[in-house]
Amino acid sequence: MYFKTKKITATLLSLFMVLSFMVSCKEQTGTKPEVVEVTENLKKTDPLPSWNDGKTKNAIIDFVEDVTNKDGANFIPVLDRIATFDNDGTLWSEQPIYFQFFFALDRIKKMAPEHPEWKNKQPYKAVLENDMPTLIKQGEKGLLEIVITTHAGTTTDEFERLVKDWIATAEHPTKKKHFNELVYQPMLELLDYLRANDFKTFIVSGGGIEFMRPWTEAVYGIPKDQVIGSSIQTKYEYNDGKPYIERLAKIDLIDDKEGKPVGINRYIGRRPVFAAGNSDGDLQMLRWADSNTFKSFKLYVHHTDSIREWAYDRKSHIGTFDKGLDEANEKGWTLADMKDDWNVIYPFDKK
Amino acid sequence: MYFKTKKITATLLSLFMVLSFMVSCKEQTGTKPEVVEVTENLKKTDPLPSWNDGKTKNAIIDFVEDVTNKDGANFIPVLDRIATFDNDGTLWSEQPIYFQFFFALDRIKKMAPEHPEWKNKQPYKAVLENDMPTLIKQGEKGLLEIVITTHAGTTTDEFERLVKDWIATAEHPTKKKHFNELVYQPMLELLDYLRANDFKTFIVSGGGIEFMRPWTEAVYGIPKDQVIGSSIQTKYEYNDGKPYIERLAKIDLIDDKEGKPVGINRYIGRRPVFAAGNSDGDLQMLRWADSNTFKSFKLYVHHTDSIREWAYDRKSHIGTFDKGLDEANEKGWTLADMKDDWNVIYPFDKK
Repeated sequence: MYFKTKKITATLLSLFMVLSFMVSCKEQTGTKPEVVEVTENLKKTDPLPSWNDGKTKNAIIDFVEDVTNKDGANFIPVLDRIATFDNDGTLWSEQPIYFQFFFALDRIKKMAPEHPEWKNKQPYKAVLENDMPTLIKQGEKGLLEIVITTHAGTTTDEFERLVKDWIATAEHPTKKKHFNELVYQPMLELLDYLRANDFKTFIVSGGGIEFMRPWTEAVYGIPKDQVIGSSIQTKYEYNDGKPYIERLAKIDLIDDKEGKPVGINRYIGRRPVFAAGNSDGDLQMLRWADSNTFKSFKLYVHHTDSIREWAYDRKSHIGTFDKGLDEANEKGWTLADMKDDWNVIYPFDKK
Repeated sequence: MYFKTKKITATLLSLFMVLSFMVSCKEQTGTKPEVVEVTENLKKTDPLPSWNDGKTKNAIIDFVEDVTNKDGANFIPVLDRIATFDNDGTLWSEQPIYFQFFFALDRIKKMAPEHPEWKNKQPYKAVLENDMPTLIKQGEKGLLEIVITTHAGTTTDEFERLVKDWIATAEHPTKKKHFNELVYQPMLELLDYLRANDFKTFIVSGGGIEFMRPWTEAVYGIPKDQVIGSSIQTKYEYNDGKPYIERLAKIDLIDDKEGKPVGINRYIGRRPVFAAGNSDGDLQMLRWADSNTFKSFKLYVHHTDSIREWAYDRKSHIGTFDKGLDEANEKGWTLADMKDDWNVIYPFDKK
């Protein structure tokens, strides 16, 4: 059985803590980024213009140049150049709650007209009334019901359309931007730079695989089949000569923590040589890369910028970065300090 | 729960019937292929030299030229050019039994010295004594035990090494060739031709994903992450600072029949525009391609060559091609007649 009660409980607990956090979190408004001046000369040749010159940027470039040098001892053949990126907090923001949960709440509101009984039924009533304290009181069971109600019970085609419509229209509550605009410009450059050096880039996220695939191609240049995430089980149906795939209310893979190497093995079949994350949920993926017989690069994005993005690590309920931070320091993995290493955060901040 | 008793039973039943077949099957010896003369001119420009000129070859080329024509009504964008290929009987031979079952039998023999008790314990005793009638009498339970014993209980690294060693040394009982030499030259050319036209080629096989990945890159030019197959569950472990993945004795995905579109959705996330198979086990995959909103190509390899390969279809226990043959005829899907359409079968037959 793949359904692991302990894992589900842990996931729901995080969601629960997130909601508690939501209730108390203060609104933060986006401010203009400090853009560090880049010389004209650097602009022309620099593959990572949104990264400030320094230790972090040098470490990335040194690694790529080393492992792509055919005559070097650390040369990595093209097929082995696998790069895996977490999504929430690594490629796009994740505050004040994982963006996918906004999708779930919005879905409940959209579905409500077809479910008049929800007006008097929890946990739906609390969602419809924006009553977070009551929603939280519904506990795990209530949250699971919201996730299942909004993510299962459609065909894969219908679900894709729902996600595409939502991502094209929904706005972040404080940043007032579409969610897929809240991606990190320096990471987009890093993805491009790796691909230009024949790395194959993958997303390996705790987020839903079918929640990401409808928009990741356009935003990150990563094709659907290179997107790995948490999934629910599906079933092939064939009616009146028409095949379709139904999304079932059963968990398939929780692609987080220990699930990340499992997902990487399932989908990719080889260890990454480059892995990037931002939280303890990525630690096992970074260890998996670290155990590669080829030289490997482990990157942690550290959320240190309370002005341009958010600042959080060890004690955050979202993207907890505690054990991972210790291990990164201990093993000399690379930390990208958002405040110091990035001169631009979001693409719309670019000069 | 993904473990579906009915599916497992069906799979085991096929294996069982295969074994019965093995006992009665007559040895067939490979003979030199008739190589149809190809003009010098054609050789230079022909992307499919091992395919005889005619309806089938024209249909393939017409399709590719049509959907890659930017100004045509049927143009398919590059990201949507997904081509999926069954493996057993479509890219390599599958007689007298699926080659993976030879691997399982050989594994039992290799493992025997560490299991002295097997000398007196079924189903192992029968395997060790090459006593097929007794092996068959062990039924489903015995066959499942052989599959689990030989495919689970190792790390993924160990299993990869086992497969690599086996594929480099084991020989087909009648063809006297390594199993990965028994691939179809015309299909290798087709894979190359599609890739040259920016199709992304995938294997979608009922065979084990971790049984195929160690050798498919070298043989078919298909990277591991584009190989989809049946899988068992795995578990991430971390001991003494070393991470590894353990293969568990539990089924994850049976990538056959209804499981093929499910696997395609899980791994690729979009319908194929080109799908090739050879049996009823591929029918759902071909229907899935047929339901694409883009123009799509459905190819069935028909085993019609009793001299150079094997001839079998409706009544075969391996690669049964009955409902699929009817539907292909009814819907005008393309049949590749091995005897008439291919002037070479295996790469070693090439002049």
